[in-house]
Amino acid sequence: MFDYINRDTKLCMSLSARPGNVGTRFHNYLYREMGLNYVYKAFSTESLKDAIAGIRGLNIRGCAISMPFKESVIELLDELMPSAATIGSVNTIVNDEGWLRAYNTDYAAVRSLLDNHNVSRDMSYVIQGSGGMAKAVAIAMRDAGFQKGTILARNEAAGRSLAELCGVEWQTDLRNLKPQILVNVTPIGMAGGIEANDLAFSQEAVEATQVVFDVVALPAETPLIKLARGLGKSVITGAEVMTLQAVEQFVLYTGQRPTQELIAKAAVYSRA
Amino acid sequence: MFDYINRDTKLCMSLSARPGNVGTRFHNYLYREMGLNYVYKAFSTESLKDAIAGIRGLNIRGCAISMPFKESVIELLDELMPSAATIGSVNTIVNDEGWLRAYNTDYAAVRSLLDNHNVSRDMSYVIQGSGGMAKAVAIAMRDAGFQKGTILARNEAAGRSLAELCGVEWQTDLRNLKPQILVNVTPIGMAGGIEANDLAFSQEAVEATQVVFDVVALPAETPLIKLARGLGKSVITGAEVMTLQAVEQFVLYTGQRPTQELIAKAAVYSRA
Repeated sequence: MFDYINRDTKLCMSLSARPGNVGTRFHNYLYREMGLNYVYKAFSTESLKDAIAGIRGLNIRGCAISMPFKESVIELLDELMPSAATIGSVNTIVNDEGWLRAYNTDYAAVRSLLDNHNVSRDMSYVIQGSGGMAKAVAIAMRDAGFQKGTILARNEAAGRSLAELCGVEWQTDLRNLKPQILVNVTPIGMAGGIEANDLAFSQEAVEATQVVFDVVALPAETPLIKLARGLGKSVITGAEVMTLQAVEQFVLYTGQRPTQELIAKAAVYSRA
Repeated sequence: MFDYINRDTKLCMSLSARPGNVGTRFHNYLYREMGLNYVYKAFSTESLKDAIAGIRGLNIRGCAISMPFKESVIELLDELMPSAATIGSVNTIVNDEGWLRAYNTDYAAVRSLLDNHNVSRDMSYVIQGSGGMAKAVAIAMRDAGFQKGTILARNEAAGRSLAELCGVEWQTDLRNLKPQILVNVTPIGMAGGIEANDLAFSQEAVEATQVVFDVVALPAETPLIKLARGLGKSVITGAEVMTLQAVEQFVLYTGQRPTQELIAKAAVYSRA
């Protein structure tokens, strides 16, 4: 509320081309419920350099980094932590008195989700996509022990490079593959996009698989997830990734870990 | 409240060596009461350059500038408006899509107060102080038509220079002067300062004068103001200056002018 901001309030923020409200609501809800003197706000920028200077100059405690800044921000920071260095992509900055450390909490979130959902490492997978988030997912799966996989990407250079990193193959489309895990890391099914009503994988592919993992977070119930649920498949949603990675950011910014109950409430609140 | 900040919320801020809470409470109160999607927060900085870059990079709408940045900030801005150019001191930045305009709302506030209190331009005055705020007050009085004055300052260079600007004399102390208006623009009487319990002018000088104007805002009731009230003198307080200059900032940031009633409520709320 307007009367809880004072001179000691710490600001955390996000930077992206198209700021949303979910992160703002998630973090501010937890600050309030846990009695922490923090406030969160989403920003966009025309100058990433000036924005990062502002994080230093205004002593902003933490910053979530989204599209399209996840890679270009690297040269402006002081230290890459392993999660970000492995992927070459940053989604979180923590500011300790002007020293900016870079993390990638998407990577940590995906690893946790694979554990939480007991996804067997023996299964074969297909990841569709080759951008920064696809990289986080693919390398998390590699590091978790998944070995039989294929990267699907129209962009050959990015697709081949990511496949090589993971020691798997690259293809432009599914063709004759029948993977046990289907992972979508493209904008297909995303609200507001031109492919909002499209399926990221064909109905046949979904019927033939066991686990469907869609990284699209808005909506959580994409056409792909709906179909998979209807067919009784195991599903992992982008909303779960978004929540878990935000929790890791919250812990990095505040040093406090919310309870599972509070996380669940904040997740519901943030998407309302 | 935590649920009123969203992606469209505009941030306004202050920059000073020792941030307070009054501005934060004043602006946030008015935003809320007037239904404006703004939020206000006080910041300090180790790097003025980075902080100003942040105002551009994060598209922060407005920024109040306090000690010790009022003069050093000038070279980082794009345009000096007359109120700031006249004084060579900035207390307000307005950001129009990356173009930073500098204002001095202290100057405007002092001019308004001299009118509101019907202070006769024929009176002689003494201003004690020669810093940025003393300059705003002295030049506001000059421009309002006050001609018989003296600048009291221990710093000869600053004192002489300000006196010259106003076409008046400089002295180190009151000596034989019996001014009709006593103006204090030093930290004497300021809460938390080493001279918090001291009188900015002698009892004899206060007894002999008609109007006492103390720019110290915290507390509003300085030893000087208390004495002057006790002696039945006309008084103008620093709290009035602080409120009026904040209103002018509010109008510059939002394009909306609060009612007198709302201003009074915000002033009380901000100092509670």
